[in-house]
Amino acid sequence: MPIKPKIPRPTVKRLSLYLRHLESLAALDQPTISSKQLGAALSLTDAQVRKDLAYFGQFGHPGVGYRVDDLIGQLRKIFGTDKMWNAAIIGAGNIGRALLAYDRFGQKNFEIVAVFDNDPNVMGTVIENLKVKPMKDLAKLIREREVKLGIIAVPGEAAQDVADQLINAGVLGILNFAPVRLDVHDAVSVNSVDFSVALEQLAFQVSLGVVGSLDEDRTP
Amino acid sequence: MPIKPKIPRPTVKRLSLYLRHLESLAALDQPTISSKQLGAALSLTDAQVRKDLAYFGQFGHPGVGYRVDDLIGQLRKIFGTDKMWNAAIIGAGNIGRALLAYDRFGQKNFEIVAVFDNDPNVMGTVIENLKVKPMKDLAKLIREREVKLGIIAVPGEAAQDVADQLINAGVLGILNFAPVRLDVHDAVSVNSVDFSVALEQLAFQVSLGVVGSLDEDRTP
Repeated sequence: MPIKPKIPRPTVKRLSLYLRHLESLAALDQPTISSKQLGAALSLTDAQVRKDLAYFGQFGHPGVGYRVDDLIGQLRKIFGTDKMWNAAIIGAGNIGRALLAYDRFGQKNFEIVAVFDNDPNVMGTVIENLKVKPMKDLAKLIREREVKLGIIAVPGEAAQDVADQLINAGVLGILNFAPVRLDVHDAVSVNSVDFSVALEQLAFQVSLGVVGSLDEDRTP
Repeated sequence: MPIKPKIPRPTVKRLSLYLRHLESLAALDQPTISSKQLGAALSLTDAQVRKDLAYFGQFGHPGVGYRVDDLIGQLRKIFGTDKMWNAAIIGAGNIGRALLAYDRFGQKNFEIVAVFDNDPNVMGTVIENLKVKPMKDLAKLIREREVKLGIIAVPGEAAQDVADQLINAGVLGILNFAPVRLDVHDAVSVNSVDFSVALEQLAFQVSLGVVGSLDEDRTP
């Protein structure tokens, strides 16, 4: 599965910004973009853009720049978003329910195929057409449904145990909403969503007078 | 309020990473750090670190580097996190409730002082010691409680109207959980949390073989 283990983490983050910006350009039928334009849209230098895209062998055409559709296709393929990903949610509390109701996952080729919770008041109930399963079924269902991504939406004290179970069951990535740092021994990828960091980031923007959106390039 | 309007957005993001990493070093009683060490911890060059910190007049001491406590103090002051921020949540659905129960806000000097919802089944109920108020009270309460940050946790179709009301009431920043792009005419700062982007980012990490956490430096 690892294709380019040497790509630095900040580059991965920037590549995802490029992809989102390119997708918004494609929606406007813009055929090409220069590294300078792409950089300007994301407050990066054109040298940075060229360096990042060169990691996977993409080079602009002199006087033309990058072909938007080509670049999107290559980015999606390398990023694995050209195929469907099955995901499971662990924890059917407020965050789990919000995620189950979230209608943007399908647009991005993610499907939530299972939800787990050990709370007897929740187990067996149906949320957004999915029956909440007990944790004892986790390993079996993850394997059967070929779930590659696990979304942890349990309280902090339960999160590490859930992460261990997900890793043992064979998931490759964990999206973590619990307010703890997970120890995954570099066995899987982890992306954490920390609401207090998001709010802190906003306070920074306000204090520094950065108006408008920090991610200028979010697709509508 | 705007202090350094010329600081580029990616620099603001990196500054917050520096602060989090420095805070974790302070917890370990590390007294100093070089730009090279700080950069290595965050996959950045030392030149980038020096350039970022020079934006607000911070320069390392040759042979010593930066004093961790000094740098934290200066970053917190500039970022405004040395004082308390009052925030309000609009929308007492799943995300709003999850945020109200989130115990990390207080640690970072944020206090949720009000929650609003127009659903008659929710209005007037008490969640985490806060009574849910009707939207018609928003402007008055925001002014009275000196709320500077608004957190939008309403469905997409209601989000722009809520943003307009928040701006008119005088908030300075909006944390947006609704899956839409807000038009704020550069009147306020906006930070958006998009769960599908977080999941996409995770798929990228998996596809690219980036194991472990993308934000290596999250404080525990």
